[in-house]
Amino acid sequence: MGGDLGCQATVQGTALALQAHSGLSVRLFGPRDALQAEIKTLPRRFRLALEERMMVVDAPRVIPQSMKPSAALRVVEGNSMSAMLQCVATSDADAGISAGNTGALMALSRRELGTVGGIPRPAICTAIPTRTGGRCYLLDLGANVEVGAERLVDFAMMGSVMAKRIDGLPAPRVALLNVGIEGTKGSRSVRTADRIMRSLPSMDYRGFVEGDGLYSGGVDVVVCDGFVGNAVLKASEGLARMLGERVQQTFEAHWGSRLVGLLARPALKRLKNGLDPVRYNGASLLGLRGIVIKSHGGADARGFAFAISRALQEVDQSLPRHLDRELGMMRAATPPIADDQNEDVT
Amino acid sequence: MGGDLGCQATVQGTALALQAHSGLSVRLFGPRDALQAEIKTLPRRFRLALEERMMVVDAPRVIPQSMKPSAALRVVEGNSMSAMLQCVATSDADAGISAGNTGALMALSRRELGTVGGIPRPAICTAIPTRTGGRCYLLDLGANVEVGAERLVDFAMMGSVMAKRIDGLPAPRVALLNVGIEGTKGSRSVRTADRIMRSLPSMDYRGFVEGDGLYSGGVDVVVCDGFVGNAVLKASEGLARMLGERVQQTFEAHWGSRLVGLLARPALKRLKNGLDPVRYNGASLLGLRGIVIKSHGGADARGFAFAISRALQEVDQSLPRHLDRELGMMRAATPPIADDQNEDVT
Repeated sequence: MGGDLGCQATVQGTALALQAHSGLSVRLFGPRDALQAEIKTLPRRFRLALEERMMVVDAPRVIPQSMKPSAALRVVEGNSMSAMLQCVATSDADAGISAGNTGALMALSRRELGTVGGIPRPAICTAIPTRTGGRCYLLDLGANVEVGAERLVDFAMMGSVMAKRIDGLPAPRVALLNVGIEGTKGSRSVRTADRIMRSLPSMDYRGFVEGDGLYSGGVDVVVCDGFVGNAVLKASEGLARMLGERVQQTFEAHWGSRLVGLLARPALKRLKNGLDPVRYNGASLLGLRGIVIKSHGGADARGFAFAISRALQEVDQSLPRHLDRELGMMRAATPPIADDQNEDVT
Repeated sequence: MGGDLGCQATVQGTALALQAHSGLSVRLFGPRDALQAEIKTLPRRFRLALEERMMVVDAPRVIPQSMKPSAALRVVEGNSMSAMLQCVATSDADAGISAGNTGALMALSRRELGTVGGIPRPAICTAIPTRTGGRCYLLDLGANVEVGAERLVDFAMMGSVMAKRIDGLPAPRVALLNVGIEGTKGSRSVRTADRIMRSLPSMDYRGFVEGDGLYSGGVDVVVCDGFVGNAVLKASEGLARMLGERVQQTFEAHWGSRLVGLLARPALKRLKNGLDPVRYNGASLLGLRGIVIKSHGGADARGFAFAISRALQEVDQSLPRHLDRELGMMRAATPPIADDQNEDVT
């Protein structure tokens, strides 16, 4: 029911995903009338072909976008988000996808599913396109606003398992986001996490990167606290939107440009597709005993379908099981390291 | 002496700035031989015309890029950075510009110049282009890695004075960077700063923005701690570079595109200029009793000249004097507000 476009994007996106994945079937949670009205707007032949694999589960209450996580936890049964998550918890569904309130989704997921591998609280993780044509996982994106060194190490472990399983990388390169690449820089928790990770034999830890390291293609996983990750991701979205607009404006500026723009249209279209953030829609709530994907609130039907595809990849790879096992192994191999006692250094 | 291109960029950039500003004269601090050799590479007529306004001050020691701020403070006299700053401290120069080690510049500036308006430690601030064609000041960019609410309020005050004086905005719109726009979100220091700033009558405070708010054009000043600001700025630089490369690649992909690319060259050039981060080179060390500008380490001669222009604007506006006066006034009007006692909320 969530997202800026409401159940229009989710229903149409679901239809696109059902078309693309013949083995997929989906339950839609929300007020039955609203969902069925939306399904009725799908082209008839399309609808008839998919209807069998698209089931509506009536959940009359919807968690509003503005509700605090603590309030969401007090909402009585019957809200669409909890109903969806309970379906994942009982293994009636292999994964859950929501475009709704992220904080509420986080809190309810944790209650309904629990966590794996000793993770106290899941992290939000998404893939970002890099200069070399690959992608880099960034986490946390806002689930954990301020964290200590141990949580940063958790994030690194989870991101590494993600890149290993989903992207098939044998040894994902992991880095910590910092204000400089020298070991003397950064907050205490970042420097302590750096020391712990240097001692982990099972992780290909590459040290610190600055913000531009996200896009360089030099590493596969970048770790930071949720405040920083959220700010970096949202700023990148804003900048990409602005630059996209500038490209368009440049080719509409005057008569000559418009003519060239007409000729350049195929190239510009390829460019736009290449920059399209929708291709990477779908953030994973990593560390849960189950698969939950958060679709971007601004995503359209195509974006929501992409988030469903991400969930399918994680299902195929049994990601929570691997997280549980590998986190346990890595944790057993982690030597206890005391906090770095130096002051914060710029 | 600093920056990736060494004194080549600074000497050539200085020559460009001298050409552009007839009232300007410059002292160059560094090993005399290196600087004079670089000056000799300037075109002869150019050099003869400018030589009178370009003085070399021999400072044989250079602070290395990798030196910790604490070590820089122990370096004996005669290093080029300290010599430059002492010249600003004694008012022999109106402003100082460096492309060197940021942490060392920060520490030495604070020692040589001191701060104004009760600021314990300066902040680094730069302008970022926005969607609406204007610009937004972002601070802190790394001088203060972790900060409490009061420092965030200081940054907001300084950014507001900057936008008022340099951009001539009568009432700059100020916002706090956060993980969400609801008042219940974010770290404790961000929420406390929000409460303090809501009570300040002299500031046009607009509440929280997320990372994309930087580029939206909806606010003129965005405030965050130095870790977040540094990560956001560097990530934006990396993304802009990647997108710029993609634009170029798109028009070189195949024969048809190359032809169109040839026709589109003027438009692409305008686009590239529009995205050019050099236009905004020059970060101000705000809060010092003097004007100090940090030029980006990666800036070329044109970029360094731009940093000099920024310094000239701050000199024209007597920025430190206004910061001192207005910070004092705003501080007197700030009611004491207790720390927000709630836990951190996502």
